[in-house]
Amino acid sequence: MPDTLSHANGERVLADLNALRAIGAYKTGVHKPTFSEPHRLSLDWLVRKLPDANLSAGIDGIGNVFGTSTKAGPKLLAGSHLESQNYAGWLDGPLGVVYALEAARVLNGDPSVKGAVEVAAWVDEEGHFGSFLGSRSYVGQVTEAEIDAARDRTNGRSMRDALREMGLAGRPRVAAEPGRHVGYIEAHIEQGDTLESGKLAIGVVTSIVGIWQYRINFVGQQNHAGTTRMAVRKDAGLALAKFCVAIGERFPSACGPRTVWTTGRITLDPGAPSIIPGGAEMLFQIRDDNPDVIARLEQLLHTMAAEANAKGPCTVAIEKIRTGAPAMMDAGFQDAIEAASKALAGGRSLRMPSGAGHDAQMLATIMPAAMLFVPSIGGISHHWTENTADADIVTGAQVFVDACRRILSG
Amino acid sequence: MPDTLSHANGERVLADLNALRAIGAYKTGVHKPTFSEPHRLSLDWLVRKLPDANLSAGIDGIGNVFGTSTKAGPKLLAGSHLESQNYAGWLDGPLGVVYALEAARVLNGDPSVKGAVEVAAWVDEEGHFGSFLGSRSYVGQVTEAEIDAARDRTNGRSMRDALREMGLAGRPRVAAEPGRHVGYIEAHIEQGDTLESGKLAIGVVTSIVGIWQYRINFVGQQNHAGTTRMAVRKDAGLALAKFCVAIGERFPSACGPRTVWTTGRITLDPGAPSIIPGGAEMLFQIRDDNPDVIARLEQLLHTMAAEANAKGPCTVAIEKIRTGAPAMMDAGFQDAIEAASKALAGGRSLRMPSGAGHDAQMLATIMPAAMLFVPSIGGISHHWTENTADADIVTGAQVFVDACRRILSG
Repeated sequence: MPDTLSHANGERVLADLNALRAIGAYKTGVHKPTFSEPHRLSLDWLVRKLPDANLSAGIDGIGNVFGTSTKAGPKLLAGSHLESQNYAGWLDGPLGVVYALEAARVLNGDPSVKGAVEVAAWVDEEGHFGSFLGSRSYVGQVTEAEIDAARDRTNGRSMRDALREMGLAGRPRVAAEPGRHVGYIEAHIEQGDTLESGKLAIGVVTSIVGIWQYRINFVGQQNHAGTTRMAVRKDAGLALAKFCVAIGERFPSACGPRTVWTTGRITLDPGAPSIIPGGAEMLFQIRDDNPDVIARLEQLLHTMAAEANAKGPCTVAIEKIRTGAPAMMDAGFQDAIEAASKALAGGRSLRMPSGAGHDAQMLATIMPAAMLFVPSIGGISHHWTENTADADIVTGAQVFVDACRRILSG
Repeated sequence: MPDTLSHANGERVLADLNALRAIGAYKTGVHKPTFSEPHRLSLDWLVRKLPDANLSAGIDGIGNVFGTSTKAGPKLLAGSHLESQNYAGWLDGPLGVVYALEAARVLNGDPSVKGAVEVAAWVDEEGHFGSFLGSRSYVGQVTEAEIDAARDRTNGRSMRDALREMGLAGRPRVAAEPGRHVGYIEAHIEQGDTLESGKLAIGVVTSIVGIWQYRINFVGQQNHAGTTRMAVRKDAGLALAKFCVAIGERFPSACGPRTVWTTGRITLDPGAPSIIPGGAEMLFQIRDDNPDVIARLEQLLHTMAAEANAKGPCTVAIEKIRTGAPAMMDAGFQDAIEAASKALAGGRSLRMPSGAGHDAQMLATIMPAAMLFVPSIGGISHHWTENTADADIVTGAQVFVDACRRILSG
């Protein structure tokens, strides 16, 4: 076979990504919520493209697009998602789908390659209606009742109505066929600045971090903001602010090298300018791929709460509301990506955990899984300015296709 | 005249207050929002009672109840309000109305008393539809356009609809008649614990504090809570928490003896558990009756903001959204209350500012004004458990009536 046939076609990859960006364009990004018209048109686009990769295409009853192969030999599943966050970036999702399509186009027609790449676009990875609904459906974790109850967080439209309007009502959902795939691989933008700041081209994902989430609740005494002397106040909002600052001071000495923690929401009760808050609540999240680190930080959180309760004047209680075990990526697949990076990207790769959640964590519950990252300019994500240099997109595609070939040959 | 005729009748005062508590009762308090059915019934109750005090009664086009006298001589206006906060206390408002009614009953029929006490119940002091609408209307500060735009904060009902349902649509509003009154006097529960903790019976209000309010806005960088390393974050929520804690640490050395400050509301943007807040806002309020103290604290606030901006990584901006000049109470009226307290409460009185706003601050813009406080058990207010000992209610009524007599004789 001539060498050109078996390499990614960088121009074709960029053209495909720009074609998808033109559907639902918003500034330099896209606005393509799950089951919106631009999302539907993007799924249709993929369905029309898959036959170029010797794949037969279909959309199942939850909105997952699959490209399936009849080629003999091992099958590697590859994919990502096509909907976007609201008014967000053009590569978050489509990059992985187009890389998967490109790998299938390059490898499936190549008789020297054993087996084939099959393609999936998982629906609603961005969580407009739920949590990883498409990939969770595929691995058997979504019930009909969950779909019955799901609604668009932005406009309240029911998922059943949306599926009906998409023409998917009553269509069966496709579930994983045991033993069909040797594994799953997904490419994605990094969404952080580790690769960029290290002048690297490829992230070899070692794990997808778990997310632990806590509701931290403060109780003081609601009172009149004018008549209650400072000395006798029990201000739950102030207690919360102190706790928040203390976390920032004490977590660094107990965390791991890549632990992150975030207070994403604060609510004061009753939240009126002239009333001392009698209650306050913060949503607090910790992410790490090492459960030992999480256990240590959770212990610290409880120690701090006990200290705050002993000191007064408010009380604090910690409720764990989400426990997310990390998903470990397959060691052999990591080696394949690293080898491909050495061959095609000058070895400018780094093994790193993913701080964000991805469909790969769902696939990892039933088969070997891997992820490859490309750099994000300025580490920006979930914003329409999200971007990656064209050269990095092309390099990533070449490494991805080569990694797929290595896995199929493995 | 026999001495009994010219003193407050404690049993009658308690009976009246309990009659008003029975209208719209909620636990041991009341739920009597402005223009609710229990509020309407309470206004009707007062209209029926006013003739007992030789007053002719009427309700004006905004819902103020007036009892007016034809007796010769000076007229002292006295009153408070009859609606309540939602699910709140029984005395906040009615105490001052019933004291005014009692003073009119005792003094207006007494030929040895020069002049008369006239009674007012100001509508919506509690701010369901606006800010001091009744007393502001009386002093000429409310336009028809403001009433057109006003809506019930709880249920959105327009004030025009509410006035129509009350049978008040089209009725004229009563404005102050220049020169008619020697002044205004209002009794109220303290809503703090100063009197109780000092074992005192009467608060002689020196001033009603001004309220200065600020919107303090923090700008950081919104980013992904999983992929953004701690070292590069610009977390606007954390910047807000630090500022809040710093206020608590630095204000005490610059404030006055009775300054209070409150962060009543905190909002993080976008307020999602997995997103680092790119924006954060706090509503911050300072109350004092000394503008010099306010100026000093406002300067400190700006110094702290400049320090925070110099340090980074977030920026902070302070916007003043409310400037409330304090209302000074009339010195002669204060002396009259203090003399009455010496005569009838063993001198257990204290001169003190009011940390809460009251209709008296509106009346003070056009005539001499005064306020008398009675103790609040536990300092509790704006809650259904708000209460005052019966003995303190009776003592307060006696001092109030005597102070009115002294002012009319003055």
